[in-house]
Amino acid sequence: MTRFLPEIPSIHDTAWSARVQALIDQKTKPLGALGLLERLAHRLACILHSEAPRLAQPQMLVFAADHGLAARGVSAYPVDVTWQMVRNFLSGGAAVSVLARQNGLDLHVVDCGVAREIAARPHVPGQPRLWHCKVAHGTQDCSSAPAMSAAQCDEAMRHGALLVQALPGNAVLLGEMGIGNTSSASLLLARLCALDVAQVTGAGTGLDAAGVARKVAVLREVLELHHAAHEPLEVLAAMGGFEIAAMVGAVLQAAHERRVIVVDGFITTAAVLVASRLRPTVLERCVFAHRSGEPGHTIALQALGAEPLLDWGLRLGEGSGAALAWPLLESACAMLREMASFASAGVDGQKAEAEAEAA
Amino acid sequence: MTRFLPEIPSIHDTAWSARVQALIDQKTKPLGALGLLERLAHRLACILHSEAPRLAQPQMLVFAADHGLAARGVSAYPVDVTWQMVRNFLSGGAAVSVLARQNGLDLHVVDCGVAREIAARPHVPGQPRLWHCKVAHGTQDCSSAPAMSAAQCDEAMRHGALLVQALPGNAVLLGEMGIGNTSSASLLLARLCALDVAQVTGAGTGLDAAGVARKVAVLREVLELHHAAHEPLEVLAAMGGFEIAAMVGAVLQAAHERRVIVVDGFITTAAVLVASRLRPTVLERCVFAHRSGEPGHTIALQALGAEPLLDWGLRLGEGSGAALAWPLLESACAMLREMASFASAGVDGQKAEAEAEAA
Repeated sequence: MTRFLPEIPSIHDTAWSARVQALIDQKTKPLGALGLLERLAHRLACILHSEAPRLAQPQMLVFAADHGLAARGVSAYPVDVTWQMVRNFLSGGAAVSVLARQNGLDLHVVDCGVAREIAARPHVPGQPRLWHCKVAHGTQDCSSAPAMSAAQCDEAMRHGALLVQALPGNAVLLGEMGIGNTSSASLLLARLCALDVAQVTGAGTGLDAAGVARKVAVLREVLELHHAAHEPLEVLAAMGGFEIAAMVGAVLQAAHERRVIVVDGFITTAAVLVASRLRPTVLERCVFAHRSGEPGHTIALQALGAEPLLDWGLRLGEGSGAALAWPLLESACAMLREMASFASAGVDGQKAEAEAEAA
Repeated sequence: MTRFLPEIPSIHDTAWSARVQALIDQKTKPLGALGLLERLAHRLACILHSEAPRLAQPQMLVFAADHGLAARGVSAYPVDVTWQMVRNFLSGGAAVSVLARQNGLDLHVVDCGVAREIAARPHVPGQPRLWHCKVAHGTQDCSSAPAMSAAQCDEAMRHGALLVQALPGNAVLLGEMGIGNTSSASLLLARLCALDVAQVTGAGTGLDAAGVARKVAVLREVLELHHAAHEPLEVLAAMGGFEIAAMVGAVLQAAHERRVIVVDGFITTAAVLVASRLRPTVLERCVFAHRSGEPGHTIALQALGAEPLLDWGLRLGEGSGAALAWPLLESACAMLREMASFASAGVDGQKAEAEAEAA
């Protein structure tokens, strides 16, 4: 079997980076006074290789699938909620639906492996679009078997990549839905970063302390069963989910195409972690929208050297944090495109130190 | 002299607050899973007294004035930059101009006391608007005299209040420009909160360590000279600025009219601090856009019990942080207006604990 794994050359270019920084430094503001907005603008100008970057036709992709492990009681919600929320995304009532509509994002809902059948529906332009990419009706319970086969993992990844290829624009925002998938994220992070799983396991969508303790005990069993899995794609197949594998494929493809990748919360970040172990250069194309309330997310962000835009204690998933943060990316581009320079605006720069001292 | 000081009754209403919280809790998400977005939505619903809050015709006000104290070398920039930046705001090249345009904010630039004359210009609809409210050509050097008289202070406050009255909409965003005005903010904060001025003094727009040390020494002199000033308006007149006094008036008037008040950075927060010492209920109407890079800002926010939306190390002023954060307020309202409830979307709530334990 030929695995899906595109080439992703580094986009780092010292001269270009310096040129963009010089443009930012000439804007009518003290050096560095726009803080993170400047770093964000710099990153977007480097990804899009433009001194006047413009985000075009942003695509919000929500990948959904079910998890066999949910039968072990690792989530506060019943499995059927995955399917119910897919319907909610499509009918426009979910958080990500509302935020995508507000911010002009095209919303795509991708059935990567939801347990129930989702009825096909005609696509209405301007409405959320449903994509049928079901690999199976949920993964296997990974406390007793690998979540998926290597072939299934590859299939899910290819679906994610194909979808990105099919869509217009220069930016993708990634989110997910899957009852039980914070467990998969914790497992991937624990194994790939060699951490104690208790350190990276939280309440998910709302377990109490006893629930979290039960979850940790189950996750320890899973890690023990798959103790031999260490290579990223092995780990993904053993303990991941179809929606996570599809996100890994989407990240690789979007990076290959040099699109801006807006990463949502804990589970999406886990997918980026897997992708970055296959192709570290994907990280050059990522913007991390927020730091979630899941304790593992802070650790994952640190491991990836990420600087999240928001720190709002979000723990919903769906891509809601990515959709929420989107206008901040537009602001960064607008700043670079439209702000005047000291010279063009006729504004004096800083006084020389000598003058300041004399004053 | 009758001082300007409108009545501002508390808007706290336990029953209404609980009703809004119940609406938020019925949305299709785990309890509290949208973190700060939920708290922001709750606040906006309380200010606007609506279960379906809608922000209308937001007005971005940038108050500008010069400071006599700038002659003592407390800023890294020459005084003329205040006037130059006013021109830059009006011609559309400043950060706040760009961000206001992006986010659909009407931009108003208010000459409260800029040292140079600013030529009148016809107002073109859709373009930034200039308001002439000059009290004097800059304040007195407050290291040798009160910055302004009580009458001047009152006049500046009335200008800010009148401007708010003249403008449409249910939200105002406040920002400022004035070379030397981080010094005034540090002085107001130090005196009103009884803090050592060194603790609340930073680099402003870009002083080096030696520059900050000189600034602290000057500010100690000022505080010593005005050691008898303790009442909020006395402190404001002694060590404030015309733009700060105008913001105090704008805050009081906007709160009186029950508008949403979006607070920018350190200097704007200092104005809110003064206003809150006159009428503590103004704080019920405020949303704090960000926590700036100025060390005093963190302390001021804590003193006001504020929870800022962004933590981006911004230190530009102008209202740039308020304009940047604006779409996040719109998201909070959209969430409350448009998200489905569990019942309306046919989504199951959390499992009972018993079921989770049995699983």
